[in-house]
Amino acid sequence: MAQQHLDPTDPKGEALGRYLRAQATEFLRALRLHRETGGATANGAEDPADAARALRRSVRRISASLHTFRPLLEPEWSESLQPELAWLSGTLAMEHAYAARQERLLLALHRLSGATVFPAQAAAAASSPPAAVVGGRSAGAEPVPLKTAQAAAGPPAPAPTTDRGNLTVGAAKAGALLERQLTLARTRAHSTALQALGSSRFHAVADKIAVLASEVPLTPTTPTTPLHPLAAAAEDRLTDAITALPLVTAGSPYNAEALIHGLSPDPSPHPQDAPWHQVRLLLRLHRYAREALHGTGGPTDLRLLTAGQALDRHRDASEAAAAAASAARTPRIAPATAYALGVLHADQRHEVEAARFAFQQCWQKQAVSTP
Amino acid sequence: MAQQHLDPTDPKGEALGRYLRAQATEFLRALRLHRETGGATANGAEDPADAARALRRSVRRISASLHTFRPLLEPEWSESLQPELAWLSGTLAMEHAYAARQERLLLALHRLSGATVFPAQAAAAASSPPAAVVGGRSAGAEPVPLKTAQAAAGPPAPAPTTDRGNLTVGAAKAGALLERQLTLARTRAHSTALQALGSSRFHAVADKIAVLASEVPLTPTTPTTPLHPLAAAAEDRLTDAITALPLVTAGSPYNAEALIHGLSPDPSPHPQDAPWHQVRLLLRLHRYAREALHGTGGPTDLRLLTAGQALDRHRDASEAAAAAASAARTPRIAPATAYALGVLHADQRHEVEAARFAFQQCWQKQAVSTP
Repeated sequence: MAQQHLDPTDPKGEALGRYLRAQATEFLRALRLHRETGGATANGAEDPADAARALRRSVRRISASLHTFRPLLEPEWSESLQPELAWLSGTLAMEHAYAARQERLLLALHRLSGATVFPAQAAAAASSPPAAVVGGRSAGAEPVPLKTAQAAAGPPAPAPTTDRGNLTVGAAKAGALLERQLTLARTRAHSTALQALGSSRFHAVADKIAVLASEVPLTPTTPTTPLHPLAAAAEDRLTDAITALPLVTAGSPYNAEALIHGLSPDPSPHPQDAPWHQVRLLLRLHRYAREALHGTGGPTDLRLLTAGQALDRHRDASEAAAAAASAARTPRIAPATAYALGVLHADQRHEVEAARFAFQQCWQKQAVSTP
Repeated sequence: MAQQHLDPTDPKGEALGRYLRAQATEFLRALRLHRETGGATANGAEDPADAARALRRSVRRISASLHTFRPLLEPEWSESLQPELAWLSGTLAMEHAYAARQERLLLALHRLSGATVFPAQAAAAASSPPAAVVGGRSAGAEPVPLKTAQAAAGPPAPAPTTDRGNLTVGAAKAGALLERQLTLARTRAHSTALQALGSSRFHAVADKIAVLASEVPLTPTTPTTPLHPLAAAAEDRLTDAITALPLVTAGSPYNAEALIHGLSPDPSPHPQDAPWHQVRLLLRLHRYAREALHGTGGPTDLRLLTAGQALDRHRDASEAAAAAASAARTPRIAPATAYALGVLHADQRHEVEAARFAFQQCWQKQAVSTP
């Protein structure tokens, strides 16, 4: 907030108005698309997952701008809209998160089980077919892309008869259990999202965003106020949070930090992950603040993108590890299933550690901007 | 074998004779010490583990020299002694290996469970006290050094009553199961070693080594034959084997290679570990060949030492991971126990990967010799 010496060419509040109008327009376009596809894939129509992603994308950006540039916006308006956007963003994100988690865990089990043995057995061991949920990550009508890979993986292996074979059966059963649990969670998240999109609460938010598309409620002095100090403050919050991370440990490969307390009484959520999740959010706020200043066609900071991807991977692996631990607490599972879930949990915590290392490596490098 | 251009100051076969006589003398000293302590610790007497270690140490060196410098030794004599030394070395190594594996796995469980909760619970959950086995790694009469640390770890945690607590119970039960299985294996290995040391087969080997202490059966031309070409050939075999290792992958942190097929039908032994185990043996042969050339007071190659330690860690973690997987196949264990063993298995495979990374890092460096 100290940099008040400003270049007259620096972006002013007008730029924030333009950015918010563009994001609101994008939201309305995505909402129209979502209603046209009816939340389900019609033949030849656009993928409802694309519409859902575009909705989430614009809601996140509007919400972030309200947060970062709060002093420039009409207080009553932004304070009433902010929690509604958080609710909407959270509700819309769940289905995608469960779908991605399922895919991550099944791919990891696949990798851990050898390429030809597990998939066929998993398909045979899965006691329930996946529910017909829509709006997942993949294109097309089939919501479980892994199935295709599984079907193509060759003839089924002979049923294991030795003691050693139990572990493979364990991997197959663990896969079936996770698929069942996460498909159920995804189906529920889908219903919740559909209900939310039909609610009067949502209609009130959508109306406000429709107004935003033509008229951004700026304070009287905003159009000529420089944006840079507020964007710089967002960057400072990010930098401070990164400074507080254990980057020396993270930069030392195989520090075995992420699996510490992996069997402690409260493995989920992992408290050591929280500062990294926080940096992920602050990095996103910083990135969107840059967008507001320079427009979405502005320069891309490759370091920011790569760091963000590492932190996304950290979050995904952290949540996948927790899901594996949670599945292991299902009553009456076989020991072989529990063993496979233990290996899977540790594998994903290993991924958490790898993501921290990747973040540390990329953050050490000088920022490289490309036009 | 190409380097026949030799420096007249290079060591000749006489040096090999000196080295073998010294190792044979060391063997006889260790054997006398072992008989005095009777394989058990008397008050104030030397530790029988030290005697056992000294026996293994000299047997390994004699055996390695017979292998590397075979053309310089009387063929009939060395060919009859070699398999006997391999038998003796293997028999003597087992008890120590089980003790070290037990300590490694219990320490890992301890680390994975949080410092204050697991040990007290593990002690309570252990259904059988460890057998009074002697000759383990630690000094003193108590063969399970971890116990002391466990007793000092504070008051017992309250018994867990929540679902999440099951995992902690799982870690405690896994620890108790491993302790039982490995203590049994260790007791058996101890008995086998004692039987071996009392057998006529052993007495025949000991007699041959007693002769070796005064008279090394060299071929007639050996005393003036240079040792260097045979030592260089041993180094070439090491270098070739290292070149064949997947060092590029190993040098890329978090390559997740070691856990691939972690749930495949045949997780133990891991075929991908074999070339590393082979390099470990070839590195030892190279190190002992250097000792024969330069004497045990010769220059220490720190890189060789560090590389050897990394490969020891690789072997230990590989075998510990296999022991955890094997314990998980015990019939009628609780799912929480199996889950903890799965986490432990993956943790040790992670250690395998870390050891490969450490080896790659140290091998990249220039050889540094200190006097």
